[in-house]
Formats: sequence, C-alpha cells, structure tokens
Amino acid sequence: MLEQKLVERYSTIGKPIPKIDGFEKVTGYARYVDDIKLPNMLYGKILRSRYPHARIKRIDTSRAEALPGVAAVITAKDTPMRRMGILKDQLPLKYGKVRSVRDEVAAVAAVDEETALEALDLIEVEYEELEPVFDPEEAMKPDAPLVHEELGTNVVNLNFRFSTDDEELERIFREAPAVVEGEYRVHYVNASPLGTIGVVAHYDERGHLTIYTNTQAPFLYKRDLAEITGVDPAKIHVIQPEIGGAFGRGMDLHPTDAIAVFLSIKTRKPVKIVFSRREELEYAPPRQPAIIRMRTAADRTGRLLARDAKLILDAGAYVSWGPFDARVMMATTTGLYQLTHARFDATVVYTNNPYCGTQRGAGNPQITFAIEQQMDELAEELGMDPVEFRIINANKPNTVTPQGMIITSCGMEECIRRAAQAIGWRGRGSAGLGKGIGLACYFHVGGGARVYRSDGCGTIVQVDDFGRVTVITGSTDIGTGSDTAIAQIVAEELGVPVSRVSVVNDDTAIRPWDVGTHASRATFVAGNSALLAAREAKRQILETASQLFGTPIDELDIRDGYVYSRSDPSKKMEYDKVIRRGHLREGGRVILASAFYDPPNQMQDERWMGNISAAYTFGAQAVLLEVDEETGTIRVLKVVSAHDAGRILNPLGAEGQVHGGVVMGLGYTLSEELVLDRGRVVNATLMDYLLFTSHEAPEIVPIFVETEDPQGPYGAKGLGETGCIPTPAAVANAIYDATGKRLRELPIKPWNILRK
Amino acid sequence: MLEQKLVERYSTIGKPIPKIDGFEKVTGYARYVDDIKLPNMLYGKILRSRYPHARIKRIDTSRAEALPGVAAVITAKDTPMRRMGILKDQLPLKYGKVRSVRDEVAAVAAVDEETALEALDLIEVEYEELEPVFDPEEAMKPDAPLVHEELGTNVVNLNFRFSTDDEELERIFREAPAVVEGEYRVHYVNASPLGTIGVVAHYDERGHLTIYTNTQAPFLYKRDLAEITGVDPAKIHVIQPEIGGAFGRGMDLHPTDAIAVFLSIKTRKPVKIVFSRREELEYAPPRQPAIIRMRTAADRTGRLLARDAKLILDAGAYVSWGPFDARVMMATTTGLYQLTHARFDATVVYTNNPYCGTQRGAGNPQITFAIEQQMDELAEELGMDPVEFRIINANKPNTVTPQGMIITSCGMEECIRRAAQAIGWRGRGSAGLGKGIGLACYFHVGGGARVYRSDGCGTIVQVDDFGRVTVITGSTDIGTGSDTAIAQIVAEELGVPVSRVSVVNDDTAIRPWDVGTHASRATFVAGNSALLAAREAKRQILETASQLFGTPIDELDIRDGYVYSRSDPSKKMEYDKVIRRGHLREGGRVILASAFYDPPNQMQDERWMGNISAAYTFGAQAVLLEVDEETGTIRVLKVVSAHDAGRILNPLGAEGQVHGGVVMGLGYTLSEELVLDRGRVVNATLMDYLLFTSHEAPEIVPIFVETEDPQGPYGAKGLGETGCIPTPAAVANAIYDATGKRLRELPIKPWNILRK
Repeated sequence: MLEQKLVERYSTIGKPIPKIDGFEKVTGYARYVDDIKLPNMLYGKILRSRYPHARIKRIDTSRAEALPGVAAVITAKDTPMRRMGILKDQLPLKYGKVRSVRDEVAAVAAVDEETALEALDLIEVEYEELEPVFDPEEAMKPDAPLVHEELGTNVVNLNFRFSTDDEELERIFREAPAVVEGEYRVHYVNASPLGTIGVVAHYDERGHLTIYTNTQAPFLYKRDLAEITGVDPAKIHVIQPEIGGAFGRGMDLHPTDAIAVFLSIKTRKPVKIVFSRREELEYAPPRQPAIIRMRTAADRTGRLLARDAKLILDAGAYVSWGPFDARVMMATTTGLYQLTHARFDATVVYTNNPYCGTQRGAGNPQITFAIEQQMDELAEELGMDPVEFRIINANKPNTVTPQGMIITSCGMEECIRRAAQAIGWRGRGSAGLGKGIGLACYFHVGGGARVYRSDGCGTIVQVDDFGRVTVITGSTDIGTGSDTAIAQIVAEELGVPVSRVSVVNDDTAIRPWDVGTHASRATFVAGNSALLAAREAKRQILETASQLFGTPIDELDIRDGYVYSRSDPSKKMEYDKVIRRGHLREGGRVILASAFYDPPNQMQDERWMGNISAAYTFGAQAVLLEVDEETGTIRVLKVVSAHDAGRILNPLGAEGQVHGGVVMGLGYTLSEELVLDRGRVVNATLMDYLLFTSHEAPEIVPIFVETEDPQGPYGAKGLGETGCIPTPAAVANAIYDATGKRLRELPIKPWNILRK
Repeated sequence: MLEQKLVERYSTIGKPIPKIDGFEKVTGYARYVDDIKLPNMLYGKILRSRYPHARIKRIDTSRAEALPGVAAVITAKDTPMRRMGILKDQLPLKYGKVRSVRDEVAAVAAVDEETALEALDLIEVEYEELEPVFDPEEAMKPDAPLVHEELGTNVVNLNFRFSTDDEELERIFREAPAVVEGEYRVHYVNASPLGTIGVVAHYDERGHLTIYTNTQAPFLYKRDLAEITGVDPAKIHVIQPEIGGAFGRGMDLHPTDAIAVFLSIKTRKPVKIVFSRREELEYAPPRQPAIIRMRTAADRTGRLLARDAKLILDAGAYVSWGPFDARVMMATTTGLYQLTHARFDATVVYTNNPYCGTQRGAGNPQITFAIEQQMDELAEELGMDPVEFRIINANKPNTVTPQGMIITSCGMEECIRRAAQAIGWRGRGSAGLGKGIGLACYFHVGGGARVYRSDGCGTIVQVDDFGRVTVITGSTDIGTGSDTAIAQIVAEELGVPVSRVSVVNDDTAIRPWDVGTHASRATFVAGNSALLAAREAKRQILETASQLFGTPIDELDIRDGYVYSRSDPSKKMEYDKVIRRGHLREGGRVILASAFYDPPNQMQDERWMGNISAAYTFGAQAVLLEVDEETGTIRVLKVVSAHDAGRILNPLGAEGQVHGGVVMGLGYTLSEELVLDRGRVVNATLMDYLLFTSHEAPEIVPIFVETEDPQGPYGAKGLGETGCIPTPAAVANAIYDATGKRLRELPIKPWNILRK
C-alpha cells in the first residue's frame, strides 16, 4: 500500500532509475586510475619482504639505480620516516625489521613497468630471519615471538569491551533455562573490486601534490597523507577518477599511496602505481579473520536474556581498519535483538600475517554468522519455530539498545515474516529431501555512523539557464549508486526530470567536505545534504517566479519541470524559463545554493555508549539450498532478502545492491578464501581464489519493507552493505536444516560437510 | 601618497603577486586544447572555398570517403543548416554559394591529420565563379556584385548612428573658429595569440556533447552552439583548457566549433580541430579595417565644441563581432573628452573579404587613432600646447557623456600630466633632431559593459579544514591575470595569504554563470562577485570564532591568517583551526559561500543612450621616437603609459598588461598587417606577418594614477585592453612632431613616411 501511494506522491522517488554513471561505464568512457596518463609519468613498483619476520641487515640499491630508465630507488631512509596507521605502528617503507611478507622494503620509479620490475630484482637485501607467529592464539602466549618488540606483547592496546553488568550476566547464564554456546571461525577474503589499488602522485616544483586515487574517503585520505609525507595538506589536491568498486578496501590509506608520493618528491615527476590482480590478492588488506566464542541465553517463553561474546581478532602485522570492525560486531551482539544484558570483548592480536582492512558489512557478516546460528540453536532447544523465536525478540520502533542506540523506524518483524513466507518456510525439515531452508536477520547502521568527529557532507546545487542541475557533493559513489540516489533526491525536490541532474564529485579542490563512503551512509547523509541544498535552490526559483507571477511564494511549486501556482493553475511556466527571466536582466540572479548536513548522531564514549547512527536498518534473509550427501556439494537454489532500508528511492539500484550483496555473501560463505601459508597468500589468482560469479548465483528475491524513516531523505536509510550480512548464517542454518550438521567455520566447503 | 597608505592598509592588495597560473605555464604542465587527447579521437580538417565569390555547383565526396582512415566527410547537407552569427547570415558549412576564400565547404574526420588532409584533396568541388567585391566603398555602389543577393544590398542592416542634434551640430561646424577634418584608414591585423583556434567535440550515444574549447565566453558559446547544432543546451558541457591568449578572437563562435560537433555527431567519436599557425593567420577573424572620416570643432579658448564621425566598416562576407566594435568607437567619439555635441554614424558593408572579429580594445585603438590626431591638429590650429589643450577638455569626476555614460572616478587629467612629465614633454619640436614626442589619451569601459542582458558573474568560495581556499568563478582568465586578481581579492577579504587561494574555472558544469571575458570586465565584475562570496565565507568563519571566543562577531577580524579580537588581542587563533573547531564536532559546519554580482550598469537603448558600464577607465600615453629621414625607419625609444584603472590590485600584473598592450599597439601601428589579395591573406606566416616582438619593444614606463573607484573591488577598474588603445595615435603624433608629416593610415611603414 505504501508503495502505491509513493508512486502517486513522487515523480522520481521510488521509480526504477538506471545508474546515471552507467553510460560511461558500459561504453568505456569512464576513466579509472589506470587510465590516467600524465606527461613524463613514471611507473612505480614496490619490493616487499622475502620473509614474514626478519631483521633488515643491509639494503644495496646501487645496481638498481644504475639501470637505464630508472629514475629513483628509495628505501625508508629516503622518507621522513613518519609512522602511519590508526595506531601509528608502521612506516610506509619499513626500516630495521619486516613483520609480514607484504612489508614494503624499497621502491623504484622508472620509465616503464618492465624497467621498474627489472630494477626490483637488482635491489639486494640482506635479512636475518626471525621466528614468526601466524596464529593469534599462539601469539598471545607469553613466550611467543614479538611482532613489535618495543610493545612487550602481541596483544594490541585496543579496548573493545562492553558489558551491561558482569555479575548479573554471569548469574543469568548460570540460571537461564536455555543457553547455547559455540566457537565460530571466519577467514581471510579479498574484496576483489574490479579496480585494484592504484595511485598517481605528482609532487611538483612548487610543493603542490596532486594525487589521483581510488580512495573511499578523499578528505581523510588527504589529512593522513599530509601527516605521513610531510606535504602541507593545504597543497594536496586529491582527484578521484572512477573508483571501480572498493567494498571497504578504499578506507585504508595504503603504504603504496605514500610510496608513490615519496617517489614523486624525489623525481618531481608523476608516479603511477597500480596493483596487478595478483598484487591485489596478495597485498590489499583482506577482511579480517576472527575466532568468535559466544553464548546466548533465553527464558522458556522464548525471550532472549543475555548474550556474551569473546573474540580474538588477528590484526596481522599492523593495525588498520580491520580491528575496528569490532565496533560493528559489538553493536550487533548487543543490538540485533532486544536484549537487556550483553557483553562483548574483542582482543586484537598482532601476528606476522598481512594486516587487515575492513570490508562491506564491517564485521557484521562475521558476528551475524555466530549470533544467527545461536538463534536457531536456541529455538530448537526451546522447541520453538525459529521464525517465531526471532519475531518474539525482534527490535521494534522506539527501543533503545544496551549501547544506547535509539531505534526509530523499524520493519524487522515484517522482514522476517515476508522472507519466511517468500522462501516457503513451513517449519524445520520441511524443505524436501536433501534440501534445507535457513533464515538469518541483520541489524546495521543506516543513518550515518559517527566514527569521526564529523559525520557530515556538503553539497552545492546549481541550476543553469537551460535547467541543467549540477550537484557538487562531497560524497563518493564507490559503485553503490549513491550518485543516482542523490540525483533523484535533487530532481524530486526541484520538481524536474532526473535526466536534468548531473553529479560532480571527483575533486577535493571543488567538492565540499565529506567524511567518506562507509557505513552505508552515502544516500542518507549526502542525500540529506543534497536535499537541503536543492530546497534552497527551489526557494530561489520560486522567489523569482513569485515576482514574475505576482503570486505569494507559498502558493507556488514545481512539478514535471513547470513552476505553477497551486491556487491558479493558469499561472505556469517552464522552470528554466523562470530562471532565465530572473537572470537575464539588470540586477539578475542565478540559482546557486549550498548546504552542509551532519546527522544527529553521536560518537560513542569510552564505555561504547552512544547513538552512533541517526537511523538503523534491519532485514532478514532466507536461503533455500540443496546438499548432495555423497559429495557435500552445496547448491543454493534461492535467496530471499528482505530489507527495511526505509523508503526505497530507486528500486532498480536497491535490487542491484541486494543482488551484489547476496552474491558477495555467498562467495564469502561457500567459495572465496585467501589461503595463507606462513603468512603468504598462495592462491593469488582469481581462478584459485574462487571468486563467486554470476554463474554460481542462485535466484535472488529482494523484498523491501518500506518504512519511512523520520530522518532519512524522503524516508530512506542506508542499504549499501546489508545484502551480504546475514548470508553466511542463513546458509549455515539452511545446511543444518538439510543435513543436521552445524557448520561453525567459514568457508563452508563440501569437504567440511562430509568431514562432520 | 595613496600608494603608501594602501601598503599599510592591505596585506595583498597593491602588492606585486606573480600570476598564480604562472607555474603550470612555464613548466609545461598547463593543458591547452591541443593537449587534449581522448580515446578514439579523430582529427578534423576543413575544405575551404577556392574562390572569393562563387556558386557551388557540385560536391563529390566519394573518393574522400573511400580513403582508408577516413571516418566521415560532411557538407552542408549533413548538417541541420541552421544559420549562425549575430545576424544569422552564415551556415557553418556553406551551401549553394561561397562568399570568401575562408568559407567552409566540406569537412573530414580521420584517424590522423595526414589522412584528413589527404582526404580534403580528394573532395571534388565544381564552382561557378562570380564577380567579387573587396572594397567596401565599391560594395556600396548600386551596381556592385551582391554578397548576399537576397538582401538586395551590401549595406548591412545595422544602425550605429548617434547624434545629439544634427542641425545644431552642422551650425557649430559652420561657425566654429577651429575645425579639423580628416580621413583615417585602419587595416586588418590578426590577434596572434599563442593558442590557435581549437576545439575537441565529443557527442556521445546519449546525446551529450562535451566540448573543449578556448572560447572567452563559455556560457554564451554553449547557448549559441546549441542553437546551431540542435543539441539540447542542457546536455552541452563546455570545458576550457588553458586559453593560450585570445585578445577578442575567442568571442566569436567559429564555424569550426560547429563543424567539429557535426563530425562528432556523425561518428559518435571525439573530433579535434586545431588550427595551424597558417590557418590561424588566414582564417581566424581579423581585427576589422575601417575608413574613418572625422571632423572636430573647438572654440578659441580651447574648448571642444563638437565631433562628427562617419565610418565605413568592412564586415567581410558575414557579420560577426567586428562591426559591433562600432559601439565602442561611438562611445569614444562622444565620450573621450567633455563634449556636448557629437555625432557618430558607422555603415557596415558586406564584401568578399574574410569576416571580422573583435580584438583588444574593440574598435577603440582605431577610433582613437583619428580622434587623438585631431586633438593635436586642433591644438596646433589654436596655437595651444597639445597637453594643455587635452587637460582643458579632459573628463572629470561626475560628468555625464552625451550617450549618458556616468563618469565617477576619473584621473584623466593626472594621467595626461604625468605621462607628459615622464616623457620629458617641453612643447612641440623640442624632442631633439629627428626625434618626436606624441601624446594620446583613451577612454574605455572599466566596470563591465552590459552588451548582453546580464553582465553578471557568479562565484563559490570554499575554505577547507586546512585553510585552503577554493574560488570557483564563472570568469575566464584569457591570460590577463584576472585569476590572480580574484585570488588577491579573496585573500584580502578573508585575511589569509594569497598562496592559500586557488581559482577554478575550467568547466561550465561546475562554475556559475558569467557572460564572458570581454570589455576588460573580469577583474571588476568577477572580482566583485568573488569579494561578495569571500565576505560571506568570512562571516561564517567569524561566526564560529564568535562562539569559540565568546566575543561578539563585530569585534572579530582576520588578518595574516589569524582570527583575532580587536578588543582583546589575546584572543587569537589560526583561521584554519577555527574552521576545524567549527566543523569537526556534532552539528558542525563547513565554510561554503556563494554570490552573484551583476554590475549596476545599463543596456543602451535604440538611440544608444545608457550608462553601459559601472566605471570608466582613462589614460594617456606618450611616445618618444626617432625617424631616420633617409630610410623612413621609425625607432620607438620610450613609451610612457599612464592609467587610471582605479586601485591597482597587483602592480606586477598591471605592468604586464600595460607592457603587452603597448607592444600590441606598436605592432598594430608599425609592423603587423594581414595583406589581402582578392580576399586572400598572402602573408600567412609569422615571419611575413611581422608580429611585433620583445626584440622591437622600446622602454615602457607604466604609470598608475590610482583613483579609488566607488564600485570597483577595492576600488579597481578594468585594465585588460587599454594599453594598446592610444598607441597608434601617440605614435602618429610623435612622427608628426619629428617630421611634420601627418600619417592617417595604418600601418605606418617607412615608405609611407618617405612617400609623404
């Protein structure tokens, strides 16, 4: 019913709009980092460590430097040696010691890639091997080799501990009628975007740095790059060509970025470093593996009583965004269902593995894998239907989670019902021989996430004499379709066709500030910002029309490109004509508006309390699959993915996001895995990595339970990440339904099923 | 005295600032149209008419089309045949008839230039020659061949006639004690900017047109291009790489632009057309030749009584901007000195010569050549010193010209005195043997010029967290240094170093509207617009500081990058820190401001009355030269160029403008000439054209008489064109002083002197 009303109420909102950047992408006109070619450009290559843990005794670059075509060879000594990363625990080029096989030891800039690669071979590095440690639990032992000796421990000094009340929690677990407990393990995967890590840096004779990069957060990137390289941030100009996908990988400032800058500082020429696919698979920060020990308690009526999670997170050799996924894991542990007692404790450990980044869902697929299996187990223990059990405990509007997250719009219950119905749920074991159905829910931020002091985004809206609308937004579309949503919002607010709207956001010198694209925030935050700017632009148009028509401004509106008087429909004029009339005269004006929107959310305090997002999204996913009992082969037949992401601005885009999310979730669950041997990725090709493709994709049925979020632009909430969150748990639950086997480790390969 | 005060009052204004775009230009990083290379780009070449006047009987493009590497061959029939130009009197590709040897008959797009040129040779065109007419006076005769038969006359239907009162005027000339009269002829010259006419057009499968061009007026260009090509203006995206100089040539929308679009529409590929130097000299619209018949009357006290000018302007085969220079000629005829009676009448004539554009000064050097010689002649007739005679008649503040132009700030008298003093003027014939001194004044618009319904410019100012200021302006810097002036204005207003300010203005999709760079308006109009936007940005910063300091906003200011309290100097903070404090918090803001400024001036009415500019500039130039009486060789020894351009924002830039103007004026006067033979340029190389270079340049002494214009940004007025305006007259007067020979025809070559 809501859907029907929307179609009538709005011109563009709720209608399927092809991505506005689709044309450039399918025709090949889109320019990615690798398409950037500047005069005198050099090609950079990086020499990495031969060992996972070693002391660097000597580096001799003289033979490399002597190679014709080599413009520069640098090691740590050629750099300001400023530490990077959230804990400032690594140098872009390592000095004294290497701690993983991805560690950067030296770098070369040369006239072409071949020469640069040849030069790498000519760099002589003498190492003294040290004993490595790869298992985080081993690394926690007192006698383990130390990754960072100066710290005296491999346990990272990060507090991800939340507890409502330890004593009360222990009491509940002692006395609860139903308790389930388990250990879950999740693995390394690579985000595998089409666009690999890439940067072109040009530091010129004035000390200006122009950098082309596929970061997701260009403004924070600029700040961080300035800090590491010593270049004045006021002289850094970040240009984002097309991103080529990112999925969280673009949150990290990579050592590569700084190295390209150092090479350019040394040569004063543009230096390009773009990862090959092999480099991407080996050296891009992977999603972080985790050991999750969890227990959940419920009463006999099916009410959840408490949840307790203890995690070990393998940061790898350094701390990047990976460990901070713990914040999302914590929020889901405490907030996915209504709970009054919860505890979360994640220990982050250094090892000699590659350091980890974040990836779509930011820890949520991992933790949900544990929680939602326990929900099924608890329901079984209580003799309840797992769907009913979930509905009993589902979040509802106006509840507050133990961490103080304030739930406003919430269609969780309806998501569960509709997913169950659409998949044909008729109770456990009813899917047919060899088949199983599994369900899992999710909870995620959907209204920004204040993980930095500002969660805002700025927008400029201009409408030219021909009615062309240009939206300059701080926000980055990393492939999610956020630019299209922004265009729709502006078109709707202005009352003009969406085809009239362009979105510009490739240059930090031009666009207003934005914290970056993460936490599914682009449509919500940038959308609200665009809405405010469009509203001001509309006011300016109506002000002109009011003078032209002699009609009070509040009787005027714009629809389908016409300014009209609501009280006298004969007063009507094309909006671009109104603009020209207001502009092309003495004392004229142009339509030029701007806005900055910072959502009403909070940074969490040291106790991890705070309403981090201005809205939350909810959903349920149901998976129907078939397991071949002889081979263990899993065939996913159908995935129903129901989402409350508020109002759906663009069903076409939203469906695409869900499709992509489900496929990514299935890859994470069933096929994709970075296999590490002594800290080194040994399957660094897409063939060996087994990237899940459209060939393997099952029927996917997106369902949108459209609430109208009070803070969201036209009631929308974030949707970018959520498609992949419940998938691993739903698949595991479906396998249990089909086979009676409970799989607590990812990926779930046929042999894991047979082995059980 | 004024200068001294300024240095104290301002941080940046009045200080010599190197051009902010200088670095890119001297290092070669600047990208001009010819540097644009797009994937799949084709190269376009144009076939022009073999005859100055002919009927096209047949065009056969089949052999050209068959040439491998040719992507498209087009003639008028492949285009929408919409007429272009101010009078809509030409097709981009001619049909039926050609009217000059530059007429475009066919065009080719091919994979490279060589193939395109080869294809041109393969196009067969059969012509029927028609009798041509090259002399405008011949063309006015009843039996002259008609350039446009359908008009029935070669006299263009344009009214450039102004008269205070015909009867009264005739009476004055009959009765006046002193009258001089003469005929003056000025010639064809080419603007010869470093950047030749160039365009890269890409019409894509969606119907979007992206066009890279070195126009001076990108927004009007877009409108005109849409009209001619039929492409929706809302889908046209004009990008201006570095202009490479323009001097008025970039005002015209050239047939080339439309042809590149047609070739791209046919091929759906990017098409580049960039003129060679030969093409530029032959086919770029030259400065328009004119026959000027003028008489001026004065009374015995040396008061001017009346001036009467009758002109014949040779438009060439079509009407572009050239004939509209008559408006400026008229304004100077009536307004250079205080006058109550004036008449101006310009007849524009079609011939089979190349059509004419406008060039720096827009008619003013031409008409001043006549007026200022007559001033000397009248002074001589009255037995007065020519300097004193000029001072008697000079404009003063608060006078109104016969056309209703309201003079506000005016330092004309001081310009005359200081120029005379600096050149060492001691009266006629006192310069020494074979030497002469000549003086001439000028009058020009300096506060915009409302020749279009809007004379406005928009600006966006952003200040980022690191204090970087980005100014997005509609204005185009065609090489005059206007971007630097804008940066200074914004820096001064914000109280930050100018090195912190960047100016962005290369893309119509991003920048707000501006009418274009002409009439020396960029610094005045765009500067005022930038000033308003900067003022708003400053207000936003001070508002934040007011909260931080607990100090009322009106007690706060910014200077040298610090926000401080005037009442309590201990309250002080770096402006970027203030911005970060205001931004990086819940409910934060960013600094984002915009403004549109349309100067308080008027379009002239059908009687040519109206205050076309918000300010006027004045000046006097004095030339010391030496004439070799045996060879007629003229050696200019020194040029003193005194200007009232209001407050000088950047002495370095202003001096550069004056130097460039004087050199251009000397070239126009003494060496440069497009020699036409039956409508064809026969000296189309820079060697034959005799472009005046730095080698020939004399000592140039710029003097700035700094008034403080009430409307100008920090009191500034326009200065871009004026250096070249009085030069031809001053040189002619100096030659007369040296030789007693009165030269009334340009260029003044040695043989013209000997011939006299």
